[in-house]
Formats: sequence, structure tokens, C-alpha cells
Amino acid sequence: MGEIHSKRIGQLRRRLAGARADAVLIPTSDYHNSEYVSDHFKTREFFSGFTGSAGTLAVTAGEACLWTDGRYFVQAGHELEGSGVRLMKMQEPGVPTTLEYLCDNLGQGQVLCFDGRCVTDRAGREMAGALESRGIRLDSSMDPAEGIWTDRPQRPAGRVRILDVAYAGLSAEDKLKAVRQRMTDKGGCACASSRLDDLMWLLNLRGSDVECNPVALCHLYLRMEDFCLFLQEGTADPEVTAYIENMGGRILPYDSFVEYLAGAEEEGPVLIDPDGISYAAAAALRSHLRVREWVSPMQMMKAVKNSTELANLRECYRRDSAALCSFIYWLKHHPDISQETEYTAAMRLDAMRAELPDFAGLSFPTISAYGPNAAMMHYEADSDNAAQLRPEGMLLVDSGGQYLTGTTDVTRTMALGPVTEEMRTDYTLTAAGNLQLMDAVFLHGCTGRNLDILSREPLWKKGIDYKCGTGHGIGYYLNVHEAPPNIRWRFLPGSREDVIEPGMIVSDEPGVYIQDKFGIRIETILECEEMTENSDGRFLRFRPLTLVPLDRELLEPSLLSPENRQVLNDYHARVYEEIAPLLPEEEASWLREQTLPV
Amino acid sequence: MGEIHSKRIGQLRRRLAGARADAVLIPTSDYHNSEYVSDHFKTREFFSGFTGSAGTLAVTAGEACLWTDGRYFVQAGHELEGSGVRLMKMQEPGVPTTLEYLCDNLGQGQVLCFDGRCVTDRAGREMAGALESRGIRLDSSMDPAEGIWTDRPQRPAGRVRILDVAYAGLSAEDKLKAVRQRMTDKGGCACASSRLDDLMWLLNLRGSDVECNPVALCHLYLRMEDFCLFLQEGTADPEVTAYIENMGGRILPYDSFVEYLAGAEEEGPVLIDPDGISYAAAAALRSHLRVREWVSPMQMMKAVKNSTELANLRECYRRDSAALCSFIYWLKHHPDISQETEYTAAMRLDAMRAELPDFAGLSFPTISAYGPNAAMMHYEADSDNAAQLRPEGMLLVDSGGQYLTGTTDVTRTMALGPVTEEMRTDYTLTAAGNLQLMDAVFLHGCTGRNLDILSREPLWKKGIDYKCGTGHGIGYYLNVHEAPPNIRWRFLPGSREDVIEPGMIVSDEPGVYIQDKFGIRIETILECEEMTENSDGRFLRFRPLTLVPLDRELLEPSLLSPENRQVLNDYHARVYEEIAPLLPEEEASWLREQTLPV
Repeated sequence: MGEIHSKRIGQLRRRLAGARADAVLIPTSDYHNSEYVSDHFKTREFFSGFTGSAGTLAVTAGEACLWTDGRYFVQAGHELEGSGVRLMKMQEPGVPTTLEYLCDNLGQGQVLCFDGRCVTDRAGREMAGALESRGIRLDSSMDPAEGIWTDRPQRPAGRVRILDVAYAGLSAEDKLKAVRQRMTDKGGCACASSRLDDLMWLLNLRGSDVECNPVALCHLYLRMEDFCLFLQEGTADPEVTAYIENMGGRILPYDSFVEYLAGAEEEGPVLIDPDGISYAAAAALRSHLRVREWVSPMQMMKAVKNSTELANLRECYRRDSAALCSFIYWLKHHPDISQETEYTAAMRLDAMRAELPDFAGLSFPTISAYGPNAAMMHYEADSDNAAQLRPEGMLLVDSGGQYLTGTTDVTRTMALGPVTEEMRTDYTLTAAGNLQLMDAVFLHGCTGRNLDILSREPLWKKGIDYKCGTGHGIGYYLNVHEAPPNIRWRFLPGSREDVIEPGMIVSDEPGVYIQDKFGIRIETILECEEMTENSDGRFLRFRPLTLVPLDRELLEPSLLSPENRQVLNDYHARVYEEIAPLLPEEEASWLREQTLPV
Repeated sequence: MGEIHSKRIGQLRRRLAGARADAVLIPTSDYHNSEYVSDHFKTREFFSGFTGSAGTLAVTAGEACLWTDGRYFVQAGHELEGSGVRLMKMQEPGVPTTLEYLCDNLGQGQVLCFDGRCVTDRAGREMAGALESRGIRLDSSMDPAEGIWTDRPQRPAGRVRILDVAYAGLSAEDKLKAVRQRMTDKGGCACASSRLDDLMWLLNLRGSDVECNPVALCHLYLRMEDFCLFLQEGTADPEVTAYIENMGGRILPYDSFVEYLAGAEEEGPVLIDPDGISYAAAAALRSHLRVREWVSPMQMMKAVKNSTELANLRECYRRDSAALCSFIYWLKHHPDISQETEYTAAMRLDAMRAELPDFAGLSFPTISAYGPNAAMMHYEADSDNAAQLRPEGMLLVDSGGQYLTGTTDVTRTMALGPVTEEMRTDYTLTAAGNLQLMDAVFLHGCTGRNLDILSREPLWKKGIDYKCGTGHGIGYYLNVHEAPPNIRWRFLPGSREDVIEPGMIVSDEPGVYIQDKFGIRIETILECEEMTENSDGRFLRFRPLTLVPLDRELLEPSLLSPENRQVLNDYHARVYEEIAPLLPEEEASWLREQTLPV
């Protein structure tokens, strides 16, 4: 494998030389800074051979380096073999950042190329600031794959659909009005954005151009009286076209966005969110118009679900939870579990979800991880490469669906037979953290940084930590990872740390991951709601949306505090009450046993 | 009272008019941003009548406003009555910050006066940036008290003493070497500082110029080979002078600091901490030298206590705790408590401390607050104005001493007789929070923002909050409030939020304050120490330094979780074991009862 990539990098170097450039930078991104990128945009993988979801490739005349994070050190080590690409382990001692490396390895007058459409305005300008101060020139107009990647997959271009207001809760007209009010408040006369989920939310549209994210590739240029929506050809049918035009919008070709911005004329400033627009697009505006930065208000408007969305979500999670309960029943009553693999089990669950009303796909590829595989947080089994299940140990299943009524995400870890004392202890500590956060009460003004320790403390007391955040926000029939909610104990510099508001949806997912041994994660989705307001302040709490029991075979009640037990018993009582009516009789009676007080 | 202040503000307005100025800003500060300021510097109090330790007064032609924080809302409300000064409750909804207020109330061409020596470089430049961009001019040369405050007290000028290395743990030479190494790392060839406790720590000196803070008014200009220490005349005796000169230092007059900086000559940059030097002093440097900002490393070096300091502190807290236990014994066995007042009780405790070895004064004026007075967080009784104690309800005593072996701080709330159900409930919830933080385990990298909720959650669950931080750092025979440790759930923009390191000393002081009814605070001082290090990280925990029992008459054990009870019982067992040997027999046997398991 490595030879192909070594050859491709050779071609890239010749192209660089032809363009009188000295280095090229290839991030992992589409034009929208999407979490998942479609095959068309996997240029970094094309050149390096590394298939992970996060990484940056830099190629100079003498060297090619790939930066990736701790999740992928082992995988990247294998995949880069023979390619001649050097692995740069991010955040390890002595490893320079990409930017430090470029500063050190390029000199005065040399040129760095990249595709300015695949880098956010913030990242691009940070890079430009550092490099240009050293006399290194930037050329942001090169698509490195051009002319080399001859069998490059087409860009996905699914049909754009309108999400009825019965699902969305608010009409696109109302949302446009609210966003325009914020534009006025900020003194802008237009705003430009390429953040796909914001734009889907704003216009009540959905698409299918990013795996598991129901979004269409698009850009928006919004003025006070009209707007331009940049869509791929053939993706908007006459109904969508009429819908857009009725709101004062115009559909323009997706690829004309940057050129359009370069020619836009405005009296006042154009608002951009430096994390929600590409360097190329922002540069086109900055070249001739006044630009004012903002944090797009769509982020927060979208994160705080409206009452229709909340009502739909509650029902959606009930049904989705019932499907997962049926799946667990199936697992626990399987006549011969060794006939199944991680993959066939995942297929079973996916098929159960697909039968639910309003189903529109998975919200991410189901993680079904047995035994030691579950210690890899982002493990994904496929048909050729899946562990066989056995009637012992634990299976971790992290899964979710897209429905017109919401996006779900849930993890349960199940005993398939006898388990060790250590597994029970660690499962119970994880449960204690999960329950403690579920039961949190906090003053309005708290962020995820204040709350994180509630989930982690039972594990920390035993000297155990999980190397990821505790919780993320979740979209409404949109991305399963949705900013800004974020529950973690520390934030990377520059990352958003927003106040948790009533109506926000967050995950609560502590875990224990012991390499080569086992993995445990318990993920319950929570809705934030008002508790009480008095002279001491406005107190908020959570209400679980996910209603799936914890595994009694893995719980050691003596390790739970009476408070934890009370929260668990209350939660289980609610699970039975709301889910049993949705199950066949024998599953309901099994659920009854599973939800009896501990 | 208010009339005097109203009159003084009138005089100030006339002075403003004479100087063709439109407003004056009077912070609560000496030239060192000290927490407590000596009477000479109490200009804000002189004009407004508000005696609290924190507040800012702004006077314009039409209005006078005083900003203070939640600790002082009740007290300021009383003290400002009749003065015409408007109370601005910081952080309350709709209340502008001082700077927002000045921006809104001054216009193009108007002039704001202040004393540039009484404002930090950071605060002064932030203010200058905001106001000057609106065309408002700043005049930093006005001491507002001049010519009005005719009976202004002299500046204190106590004798400077050397702290023996047996107490300090490290010699001043070693500390100078370490700081100069950090200066070299930062590329500076000199550093200037006016932060009193840093300078006392660095040079192993102590003074008595700030109430309860054993510091001498001074400034430092430190070069790689020599240094100038700016001291008030007559404060350094020949021994101190020789000590300084032996280290390559020179003593110069205190008031010549700004002038000296204006004439200093350096090849390279001068390092300043914008929070540790005045606007006036920094401006003198900036006018002709290259200035580089840093966070003074002395802050962190001082906060992480060395092994000698820690050993001394542990012993110091044992003795101090024993004195408080004796005081509580006295209170609880008083033949007729109604013969005592808040003030006489405080005097009694202060006298008991004064008999302890190495005693060098109080670390702050003892707070002895009975009944509803305790709802005022920083209530201070004096001989003329102290509530009489009665054999019922609760007495809150917050107190501490300065010793050559450390600085102590402790709060206990005691029942003096029958108490209400509500008092017991709120005391127990406060205790639960106090114990939960005491028992915390956390990864290195956590700050006080991560931990705060541990102390607050039992109260938040009942819809109760205390309007102050949970914990502060504490000096070693230095200031009782010492940055950087800080346990709070939110930080003011720009305030320091440092990682908690082993060897740091922090307070743990949740409370309940119900206006006109009662106040509860339980404050225990904790030392941070290593717990364990493994592949998941470096785990830290706390060890209590304060060893004084909680009040069993106020504890309702049924409201404590078994974990809380375990932590309490373990703590009480340690209290008995370490403190009983220091007490007379009958007090020791009383302590035994007080520390039996609940």
C-alpha cells in the first residue's frame, strides 16, 4: 500500500515544483469544517493512506509529515508504513505543531500552498499571521488533488428536502426574522456562512451530503431583504426552489460562492463567524468590504430547542429507547450468542431502528465493541473484521438514529454472561458518575466545565479517568455532535465554553477504558430544564430523554451511595412506566424485572 | 453619617470643577493593589462612608456611584444611606460595570481623573483603552483626597524584619536566583514589582504596614546582578540594610520609585506583571524602555509551599486549632453567655491566640457574628456596637492568626443553645459541601472552577447559593488571601484561574446566609497533596490543616450521606488524635465526645 502513496506524493512534489511552491498543507476537511467528510474530500487520505477521521498532511520537497491525535497513533503507524510519511504524534513531548513545523522548515520568500476552501477563516488567518511574519508566502488557491486524483469520487449531491414546521416548530420565516434582528443589533447589513447545520436549521431544510449528518452542501449570503442560497445543481426540485423564492431567496450555484462574495456590494459591514466560513470565502469579502466578526447566533438558537422540538424529541427518545430495550432483550435471551458477531448485532439494532416511525438513517455508524475492542473509544467493526460474541464479558453498543422528530444517541454496556469483579466495580463507578450528573442541580451561568466533575469524581476517587469529554450537544434531526454544549473539565484554548441553557440537549457519558481488556460507557441523553428561581438565583436541572435501564448484572449496589440508588430507582421507575407500554408483553415483563429498585 | 459624606463629595465636585475635570474614579487601593489598605489610603471610605474591603466610587457632576460585590450589598445599603451615593450591585442583572458606566456617562472631550498609583497597570490601560477610544481624556495625576482630607492619617511605616530561613525554608539568595532564572527564560534583563507579598516572600522580609498583612510598603527593581528596594525612611535598621547590601541590593526612598523607573536605563526588556505594578509606575517604564509583560513567577513560587513551610504550617494549624477548640469549650460551658457580646467573645479568642508560640498578630479582624448579624458575610463587631449573646441560636466566628510558622484562617458556627430545624438543616447541608470538597480527588490540571460544585451541590439541590467564592489561597506568615488559588464556579473576565498544585493551601468555606435571620459558614483549610500517579494521570487530593470539630448540636446526621458521614468521622478521629494532647484534660474529654462517630 505504502508505495502507491509514496508515488502520489512524488507527483504532488512535481506539481509543487511546477507551481514554484515549496510546501503544501492538506487538512481533513470539506468546505464546511464538517465533522465527517465525504469521500470526495478525502485528499489527505488519498496522498498519505491514513484513513482516520482527524489528521493533517504537510509535504515539502524533502519530507512528508502527518499529524494526528492519540486516538490514531497505532492505526496511523500501520497505515503510513512504506509511504515515507513521517507520523507526528500530536501533543506528545517534543513534537512540533503543524504551524511550528512549517515555521521551522520554510524560509523567507518560500511559498506554502493549500486549498483556502478547506481551512476555516480563523485557522487560515492564524497560519497566515505566523508564516507571513517570517516572510513565507501563502497561496491558498491550490486544490492538491487536481490532476493527480484521477478517479476522485463525485461530490455527493442528494436531493434537498423541506422539514415541515410540525417537526421544526418554527417556520424558516420566523427564524430568518430572528437572525436578521441579531444582525441589526450587531450593526451588520449582511452575513455569510458555510456552517451546514446552521443553514439547515435556519431554512428548515435537510439533505444527505455528509455521512449520518442530514445536511446538504450549501453556503448562504443573507441580507436584510433577501438572500442567496448556494446549492449544487439538481439538488433543489421545483418545490424547494419555490419555497426559497417565496421567502425572498435565490438559488445560485454552489461553486460560485467565493466568486459571488468577491463581487458583493454592501453599504455596511458583513458579519462572519471565523469558525463558520472558509479562509477563501472570508478573504473574498475582506478584499473589498468591511467585515465584522461575530459568533453566529444561529449556534445558540439551534442549541436551545423550541417547545415543538422538545415535545418531538421526548417522543422520539421514548421510541428509540424502546427499540434499544428490545435489542438488549434479544441479546440477553439469545439461544446461542456465539452465532453473532459485533457486526451482526449492530445490523440487528440498525434494522430495529429502521422500522421506527419517521426514521431517516443512523446518526453515526453504530459502535458495537466486544471485550477488549470496547477499550478503543471509536472502534468500528465491519462485516469482514468483527469479533465473535461469546456468553461472557461485556458488549458496548453506542448507537443512534436520525428521525424527523429528532436525533438520538445512546450507549449501554451489557453483560453477555459471567463478568469479573473488576468489570462490575468499574461499571458501577461509571453508573455512579452517570447518575450524579443526571441528578445535578446548578445555577444558570454554569458551563460544562463546572459540571464535569460530577460524572468523573467516582472514577477519580479510584484513580481512573476517561480521556474524552463527558458530554456533547445533540442536534434536532441534525448532527449528533452539535456545539455549543460541551461538558468537559478543561477546554482547548479558543474553544467555546457556553452557559448551559434550559432546552439544551446534552449527553452524559462517563466510561472506563482499559487497553486490551475491556471498555465501559454509559451514555444517557439529558434535557436541561428550569427547576426553581428565587433570590439566590435561577436553578436548573436535567431530565433524561434516554430511557433504557442500566445492566443489573453489572451493577454492584453496595458500591452505590443511597443518593445514587435513589436516582437510579427513580430513573428505572420512569423507564418502566414510559417504555413498557411500547413493548410486547414478554419484553415488558422482562423490563419490569430490570427496573425493580436496587 | 450620610451628610458628612454628601458634603465631602460636594467638596470633591468643586475640586473637579476647578481642575476642569468631569469625573473622578476612586478605587479601594494603596499603591500595591493590597487587599487591605491602611487608613491613609481609605479615600473611597472617606468620601462614601462605605467601610467594606472592596468597592469603587465614581463621582460625576450629577451622580456618585459605589460598586461593590455580593458580600457587601446589605452593609453598603446601610452605610450609604443619606450620602446620596447610589449602590451598584456588581454582577446583578442590568447593573453596568464601572467602565461601562463611565463610557455611558462621559462624552467626547470630557476628563476622568484618578490617582495612577492606586490603579494597576492592567486596569489603568483597560480603562484608558475604552475611554480614549470614545474621546474621553484621562488624567492619572490626581490624588482626590488632597486638600479635602485634612486629618488624613500618616502612612504606616513599621520596622522591617528579616524572616529566618528556619521559618522561610529557602534563603532569599536562592529565591533571587530562581526568579532571575525565570527572567532569563523570559528574555528580560530587569523586572519591576510593587506586589508586597511577593517582595516579602522573595527577600524573606516582613513588615507591619498593612493591617493584618505582615508586609512593609516597598517596591522592587530587580536586575540580573543587583537590585533596588524602595523602602520608607527609617523602616530598615542597620541589620536589614546590611542584609540587603550583602545580597547586592540597595535601599532607595519609597517615594522615588516612579521617578527612578522614569530614569532607568536598560539594554533589554523590563518585565512587569500588569497586575503587580501601578499604572503610574508602568507608564514611567513604558515611556522610554522596552517593557515585556509576564505573570510574575513569584506568585506561583510563593503559593506552592516548600517542605519547611508545610511542616511549620501543619504544626501551626494544630496549635491554632487547639486554641479554637478551647474557645468553643469556653463558649459551650459558659455559666452565663448573656454576659458576653460578639465583641467580648472575639477578644477572648484573640487573647487565646496571642498566647500561642510565634504569634505575630491576627491574620484579619476576627468576625464574631451572632444571630442575624452572621448573614452579613464580613460583619465586624466593635466594642460600641456588638450584639449581646444569648443561650440560643448560632454564633459564627471567622478568625485567624499570623505566626512565624504560618497564617491561619478558620470559621466555625456554633449553637449557643436551642436552634431551629431550619438552622440544623442548613448547617448540615453546609457541612456536606464542606466535607465533599475536603474529600475531593482530582486530576492535576484542575482549577478551582472544576471543584467548586462539590462544595455547593448539597445547597444548590435545595435552591440555596452563597454569593461568594468557595475558597482562596493562604500565605505563609503573609496575606490570609493569597492568589493564585481560587475555588469558585465562575471567574471574572481577566481574573487568574490557575491549576491547583500540590503544596498549595486553600480554604473550603461554603455557607448559608439568610438576611435578617442567620448566617452559617464552615471554613476548613486544606493542603493539596499527591494521591497517586498512573497511566490515567496524576491524581491529587486534599488534607485538612484545620482540626476543629463541626458542631454536633447543629448536625442532623440523617441528612448526611454515608460518604459524608465517613469523611466526617475520619476527620473527627484525626481532630481528636492530634488536638486532644494539646488540651487540658477536661477540654480533651469534651473533645472526645464531640468527635465520636455520627
